[in-house]
Amino acid sequence: MNKGFGSDNFSGALPEVINAIASANAGHEHSYGEDSYTQKAIEDFKQIFGNDIEVYFVYNGTGANILSITAFTQPYHAVICAETAHINVDECGAIEKQGCNKLLTVPTKDGKLTIDLIRHHMHEFGNQHAVQPKIISITQCSELGTVYSIKELKELCAYAHAHDMYVHMDGARLANAIAYLKCTPAQITKEVGIDVLSFGGTKNGMMFGEAVIFFTRPPKEVKYVRKQAMQLHSKSRFIAAQFSAVLKDGLWLKTASHANEMAQKLVNATASIPGVEIIREVQGNEVFARIPQKHIKPLQEACFFYVWNEENSEVRWVCSFDTTEEDIQQFVYLLRKELMQ
Amino acid sequence: MNKGFGSDNFSGALPEVINAIASANAGHEHSYGEDSYTQKAIEDFKQIFGNDIEVYFVYNGTGANILSITAFTQPYHAVICAETAHINVDECGAIEKQGCNKLLTVPTKDGKLTIDLIRHHMHEFGNQHAVQPKIISITQCSELGTVYSIKELKELCAYAHAHDMYVHMDGARLANAIAYLKCTPAQITKEVGIDVLSFGGTKNGMMFGEAVIFFTRPPKEVKYVRKQAMQLHSKSRFIAAQFSAVLKDGLWLKTASHANEMAQKLVNATASIPGVEIIREVQGNEVFARIPQKHIKPLQEACFFYVWNEENSEVRWVCSFDTTEEDIQQFVYLLRKELMQ
Amino acid sequence: MNKGFGSDNFSGALPEVINAIASANAGHEHSYGEDSYTQKAIEDFKQIFGNDIEVYFVYNGTGANILSITAFTQPYHAVICAETAHINVDECGAIEKQGCNKLLTVPTKDGKLTIDLIRHHMHEFGNQHAVQPKIISITQCSELGTVYSIKELKELCAYAHAHDMYVHMDGARLANAIAYLKCTPAQITKEVGIDVLSFGGTKNGMMFGEAVIFFTRPPKEVKYVRKQAMQLHSKSRFIAAQFSAVLKDGLWLKTASHANEMAQKLVNATASIPGVEIIREVQGNEVFARIPQKHIKPLQEACFFYVWNEENSEVRWVCSFDTTEEDIQQFVYLLRKELMQ
Amino acid sequence: MNKGFGSDNFSGALPEVINAIASANAGHEHSYGEDSYTQKAIEDFKQIFGNDIEVYFVYNGTGANILSITAFTQPYHAVICAETAHINVDECGAIEKQGCNKLLTVPTKDGKLTIDLIRHHMHEFGNQHAVQPKIISITQCSELGTVYSIKELKELCAYAHAHDMYVHMDGARLANAIAYLKCTPAQITKEVGIDVLSFGGTKNGMMFGEAVIFFTRPPKEVKYVRKQAMQLHSKSRFIAAQFSAVLKDGLWLKTASHANEMAQKLVNATASIPGVEIIREVQGNEVFARIPQKHIKPLQEACFFYVWNEENSEVRWVCSFDTTEEDIQQFVYLLRKELMQ
Repeated sequence: MNKGFGSDNFSGALPEVINAIASANAGHEHSYGEDSYTQKAIEDFKQIFGNDIEVYFVYNGTGANILSITAFTQPYHAVICAETAHINVDECGAIEKQGCNKLLTVPTKDGKLTIDLIRHHMHEFGNQHAVQPKIISITQCSELGTVYSIKELKELCAYAHAHDMYVHMDGARLANAIAYLKCTPAQITKEVGIDVLSFGGTKNGMMFGEAVIFFTRPPKEVKYVRKQAMQLHSKSRFIAAQFSAVLKDGLWLKTASHANEMAQKLVNATASIPGVEIIREVQGNEVFARIPQKHIKPLQEACFFYVWNEENSEVRWVCSFDTTEEDIQQFVYLLRKELMQ
Repeated sequence: MNKGFGSDNFSGALPEVINAIASANAGHEHSYGEDSYTQKAIEDFKQIFGNDIEVYFVYNGTGANILSITAFTQPYHAVICAETAHINVDECGAIEKQGCNKLLTVPTKDGKLTIDLIRHHMHEFGNQHAVQPKIISITQCSELGTVYSIKELKELCAYAHAHDMYVHMDGARLANAIAYLKCTPAQITKEVGIDVLSFGGTKNGMMFGEAVIFFTRPPKEVKYVRKQAMQLHSKSRFIAAQFSAVLKDGLWLKTASHANEMAQKLVNATASIPGVEIIREVQGNEVFARIPQKHIKPLQEACFFYVWNEENSEVRWVCSFDTTEEDIQQFVYLLRKELMQ
Repeated sequence: MNKGFGSDNFSGALPEVINAIASANAGHEHSYGEDSYTQKAIEDFKQIFGNDIEVYFVYNGTGANILSITAFTQPYHAVICAETAHINVDECGAIEKQGCNKLLTVPTKDGKLTIDLIRHHMHEFGNQHAVQPKIISITQCSELGTVYSIKELKELCAYAHAHDMYVHMDGARLANAIAYLKCTPAQITKEVGIDVLSFGGTKNGMMFGEAVIFFTRPPKEVKYVRKQAMQLHSKSRFIAAQFSAVLKDGLWLKTASHANEMAQKLVNATASIPGVEIIREVQGNEVFARIPQKHIKPLQEACFFYVWNEENSEVRWVCSFDTTEEDIQQFVYLLRKELMQ
Repeated sequence: MNKGFGSDNFSGALPEVINAIASANAGHEHSYGEDSYTQKAIEDFKQIFGNDIEVYFVYNGTGANILSITAFTQPYHAVICAETAHINVDECGAIEKQGCNKLLTVPTKDGKLTIDLIRHHMHEFGNQHAVQPKIISITQCSELGTVYSIKELKELCAYAHAHDMYVHMDGARLANAIAYLKCTPAQITKEVGIDVLSFGGTKNGMMFGEAVIFFTRPPKEVKYVRKQAMQLHSKSRFIAAQFSAVLKDGLWLKTASHANEMAQKLVNATASIPGVEIIREVQGNEVFARIPQKHIKPLQEACFFYVWNEENSEVRWVCSFDTTEEDIQQFVYLLRKELMQ
């Protein structure tokens, strides 16, 4: 298959990840997180976020989001999120199944929540007939490729905490946000008041595995929640070794920077092509564009990407750690050719 | 860590698995099961079980068991299983959480269900106050290292079907049972009437990933159940490639045969040691023995294994694909030395 | 407490209901629906809706809605409803808890769904990442006091069925809709294609108890769903006897007609009062009005009613079977007096 | 239908209950527990149990048990109970559905738990693979008609609390136990350390409604749990008024004493009949007897009762508040006649 712009999970794994897995394969290790690799990877996270965190490895992004949220919620609690949030549209109702939580969704312009946007849902506290808002879930980078600023995050967290609520960050593409903001990982998570973070692995070069990082201790006992959620891996060393590999020397940030840079090149090269309309500023590794309906299918066949919104012929192009300048040149060539027809 | 007899998930992955993963890493592939590797692995399973099956890959054994069972059940349905069943004692209540199903458990001598043992639970059909038995879940090899014969399986399946019930096989160690019975995979699954099978991968040399094989089409739409259960991997090629590697040329059966053989050697070498009592016939890769309480801890420290039952100082020794004769000799040496003290 | 316009569940029970309960109290009866009163009440419903129905009695409206919907759905199914639907805003997330279903909500002008309004949610069929729309839930009368016409209902049902979906009607105030439309009960339920109906009892003069009427046989076995949902009453005769009492000689429709008539009188008497703005046409027994914010609290203290929307000082006045012309006159007097201040 | 010995829910309601309902029917009242009757009934309970309790009214016994237990548990918590417990065998898996809790059941001789009997389940604390025992649920009187002594209750509660667990009492027939023990209600609940009590109403002369009484504040917010569990009645005055009626002047204890006395008369009159074997001491209002299989059906037709255990022709005869000496004489006559055939 030609490399395209379908998703960052169309990529394989980083060579460093493959090597780490092969190295971790020697001999026997205790299972279910009691191995030395898991201890090492947790230490690696503490180097980044400080010692007062709890780290739990899980299989995938949905698992990470569910563990994060349900550790803090009862079934009568509601989750406030953007209408476009992954937990709302891409997880087949996992949050309703796993946590029984109602999502209170908010239409947004750019995938980002603001206090003004969510105020509408911040009521009915104490009313026995209504679900009780308990957690705000934001995605960084958002599903629309935008990035919350440190100031925006601080405001949201302060607002949540003032209402006895928590804030979850879906960081499937956290690295891309850090690369964009040129900040430290702690600066847009722990330091702004995020309570729990889904730390993405798979979309940034891992084979499988995500981490959930608790900055605030949740009311439930997380290890049981994880096991019941079928997210505890027996040969746990293989998730941990991957994390240690990508965290080493900031590899995870370098790969994200690269993906972001490729997205900038892509938008620069396509914005001026007649028929292409770039929908919003590109801040991470995703480009959202509008192109004439009839050209979408032929282009997809030559170089795959997803349609984001059928109704207005909006498409999404995602760059990855392995996207090259040649990939972009080739795509731009195909795009120009197709749109000129 | 010294190689011990803790569990078959203390082993790493087979070299063939590591190679398959490295090979599958080239280029981009569609995600979420729409990749060519997944198609190939499903074909590999059809070579073994015939074309009229449906195959779903998941992350782990608990995920496989839950998907298998809940595809056939509503919350008011009960699952009949042995008291020792993995779904009852080792999955932190995942079946109650994920399916809301009551388990109707049966004490057994050897980990195996019989019609006589379960008859006690086969009542209350139609009574609105009682959960309705809908599926019998058996484990092959059982959690006590025993193997159901073809005849036993046929009887159980016929009995279940006569009561409008289904039969699930937890085959985390299916390969060991096949190796013991010297039969084909289909002979103890599809051909005896099993409706759905958890096909083990991880305990037999894979890094992660299990398969659920439906011989009977269940009432629910499985793909949504899997996604909601957080068991759909994005970079699905990496589970599929592992399965193709272990299924190729019967590697999975060779490794299981080896583990079984090692277990036989282990039991042969230890049965006559004064103080060791072998509890039941060893049919798969697990040996259950009783040794004096005071010797357990020192031995575990020298060469790890699990205590199976604290109350009667029963221990479990599991052989794996990578257990060697030297490992056994070394352990026998330690055991003799310790017991003579 | 002064009679007010808080809700139709602020009323007690009809005298006929009290009498029926007292009469049913003689002697012993089988419990859990196996009594003669239950058989009689089911027959009474068959007189109204025909013989090809199944009737289940439950405790309350939330129980009726949950039983109706979950009999047809799996956790990966979505329910389409108005943003204002009782199941969305007044049941504390019972549908998410009991059925794990995601609600796909639609903002409406008047509380009523239309094909145009819901089309936005009718997509993603077959996409494993998305919940699958399976049932449309409408409320008749709607929560905003409006009534679906026969034609509107037919269109919605046909549309749903064309998409392999079902239609649930929350008929907590069904009688008021029938009274408004001057049709038969079957004409706006069974005959337009409704699959399952929550038939209201409590809001129309009963002490407790609602009925769920299935026009289409659902995939689940309802009696177990009801029991697990804690909605099966032991002394079932007492719900059944109430239903027989209100169904007798059309009492339930007479009481609803009366309540509707009182609402008309109320709107006629208040619409012209300076400061009162009637928000939409009154079709059932509920009047929605806007009055200046500062007058709300004093009025509530004199004669209770609920604020419907704090943000725009919208209030709701509900008439009941026991609302009298004097009650209205008195309220109008209070209202005039208060607004003139 | 002839009065029989089927169940105490085959009776209707006490005349005092009917009167209370009729009296409560005047005028309008706030709904959902904000009415004056509810406040009064809660005060009545505080007269009995002291001021430091929280009282929640629900519809039925299953609802009371579920609210009691799930207020204290997460899905990864287990409930220890007798194999014969109502929550295990008579609620269609409501606890698994509503709380996702695994029941750890214990076979008993007489329906009562002891520390020795449950010790087997008091392990695996802290093991992430195992559900965590969190609550012990006992039934007083037990489902086998036996009564826990104050001493037995104290021991169980102390044991539970020492393990950071709670104790729930299913008191559907609490009044019968109090009548048997000749103690105060507080003496076998609050004072022995019970954390939460299902206080039975329906089986002791009410039409519908039970109460949940919290002696210990649970971690969840109960009002939301109740609403989501569909157990909040709108016309709440009608449950409350019944409770006030039965609590007044100890009526609930007089009716239970009467039922117990009738059970004593029944056992005295039948124990010596050839062919009747009384199985265990009668302490409450239930008699368990063995009679020859072939006589069961004819007797049931003349005077209904339930078979308790088909396998050993055990039957259950329940006396109620409205059982008379004539009912017993008539039944004894039928029994003698039938058994002599």
